Amino acid sequence: MAEYGFGVDIGGTTVKLGLFGIEGNLIDNWEIPTRKDDGGKYILSDVAEAIIKKMEEKNIPKHNCAGVGMGVPGPIKEDGTVIKCVNLGWGIFNVADELSKMLDMHVKVGNDANVAALGEMWQGGGKGYKNLVMVTLGTGVGGGIILDGKILAGVNGAGGEIGHIKINSEETDVCGCGKTGCLEQYASATGIVKAAKKALNTTDRPSRLREVQYISAKEVFDAAKAGDDLAIELVDDLGYNLGLALSHISCVVDPEAFVIGGGVSKAGEILINTIKKNYEENAFHACRGAKFELATLGNDAGIYGAAALILK
Amino acid sequence: MAEYGFGVDIGGTTVKLGLFGIEGNLIDNWEIPTRKDDGGKYILSDVAEAIIKKMEEKNIPKHNCAGVGMGVPGPIKEDGTVIKCVNLGWGIFNVADELSKMLDMHVKVGNDANVAALGEMWQGGGKGYKNLVMVTLGTGVGGGIILDGKILAGVNGAGGEIGHIKINSEETDVCGCGKTGCLEQYASATGIVKAAKKALNTTDRPSRLREVQYISAKEVFDAAKAGDDLAIELVDDLGYNLGLALSHISCVVDPEAFVIGGGVSKAGEILINTIKKNYEENAFHACRGAKFELATLGNDAGIYGAAALILK
Repeated sequence: MAEYGFGVDIGGTTVKLGLFGIEGNLIDNWEIPTRKDDGGKYILSDVAEAIIKKMEEKNIPKHNCAGVGMGVPGPIKEDGTVIKCVNLGWGIFNVADELSKMLDMHVKVGNDANVAALGEMWQGGGKGYKNLVMVTLGTGVGGGIILDGKILAGVNGAGGEIGHIKINSEETDVCGCGKTGCLEQYASATGIVKAAKKALNTTDRPSRLREVQYISAKEVFDAAKAGDDLAIELVDDLGYNLGLALSHISCVVDPEAFVIGGGVSKAGEILINTIKKNYEENAFHACRGAKFELATLGNDAGIYGAAALILK
Repeated sequence: MAEYGFGVDIGGTTVKLGLFGIEGNLIDNWEIPTRKDDGGKYILSDVAEAIIKKMEEKNIPKHNCAGVGMGVPGPIKEDGTVIKCVNLGWGIFNVADELSKMLDMHVKVGNDANVAALGEMWQGGGKGYKNLVMVTLGTGVGGGIILDGKILAGVNGAGGEIGHIKINSEETDVCGCGKTGCLEQYASATGIVKAAKKALNTTDRPSRLREVQYISAKEVFDAAKAGDDLAIELVDDLGYNLGLALSHISCVVDPEAFVIGGGVSKAGEILINTIKKNYEENAFHACRGAKFELATLGNDAGIYGAAALILK
């Protein structure tokens, strides 16, 4: 019986790899650069080479390895076909089949945000839940939905694209997706900074943020924690927008828990508390008891989730 | 091998029953009153009696019947436990087990709105799709979500409670659920009439609706079809609210299709067209191609879906 499995998380700059025991214990992890030359045609062979090397190094025979799970930054169909990963230069082809042929091993592939959600469920902040929504607050706002322990990929690979729920019909600024008023425009690190700058530039209100040279989401949270009124309002607005969007989500999939991750989630309890308060005020009564958890795996959620595709 | 199955749809006034062939063909359907006396304790025995009578009448031996599927008007867990059906007087008990004991047959139970969605997928407007969202525009706004051919019930039985997505943060009127600004307040038959009355009472604008004694959703659509400007605006507003809410839903579950049913859906193409237009304007780009279909089973969706629980 197999004792090991690999989790691979392909990013735009680096590929993260992890060797896992079947219980989900991370045995070894490392990175290789993502070679995007020539339409990203070397990426999979680099991954295959890295895995074979590691198996040799650790003296793991092929029959002892359950296979390779992989997260890719783009929409992906159930059969492993990727439909354009612009960040990697990839067009449309079956990633799972191709890597499987190179390695002569079982390969499963998922979208990176969805795979990270699976990772948090398996070994992170979502451990113990089988129905959860992962909310990743980083440069953008990503999401992943796990129902009955499985990724909800969606028919166009857009399941859990919660950053593009329109929460403000009045917005005139355009989101990266081309729409206006998307959650991502307010709840991403970029959106938080933008809201702070707007508040500082359009009012004379005193705030310790005025003394900060480069405003970041962290600075906004730190100021709020220190009792700065303007920053507290900014955090409240963020909590309202997120709480409202998550209340929409619970009217659709009615999950057990929301797991909040990404760089912005380092703010910790202050963030969870404001999201939870606003969620409870806006959620359908039957769903008000949903739990809120902080993600715990950080940048490793992707390799954990990728391994979970194979080992869970 | 079994050739038949029963579908039962328990409503607040009547219980609808259907005898189906395994291919989904409706062989016979009839109704019995819903006896709500004494906390609804006679409802299941009445259902059992009705089914046994029909089997005798049609000369169907038990081994020739795959079982009974049933939709109930309340939240229900996967194991068949109902968690209060206020309309029936029911508390918390396992409906599937109880009916199964009475009949000595296999019984499966689901929430009525979800079961209707399954029915439309099986034999109605959603035929050919495996991932769809059913939107029922009646006295209220209900929903049912089918993913990979199966009902998404939600951990609190609130999966697909799309009528309670908050789409207006400014609303002060309270929804039946206790919140404010729910989709149901605008997109139900009641909501449409309310919006029409408000428009007529707060402006002097001419409209043929002023000559109507009892305004209904149908009157509003008829006036819009006849070119009445005020009614056209009301239909556009409805389309915006529904299109926006469905765009939220597609960022979560990314379905193939939306199936629009309920009394309001009798308006037909004018309704579908305005929902579709507003949906496409607000949906995430990957989801813009979702199909819009009219439900076709009407009040029979419930018995079809209930039978599908057993026969599909």
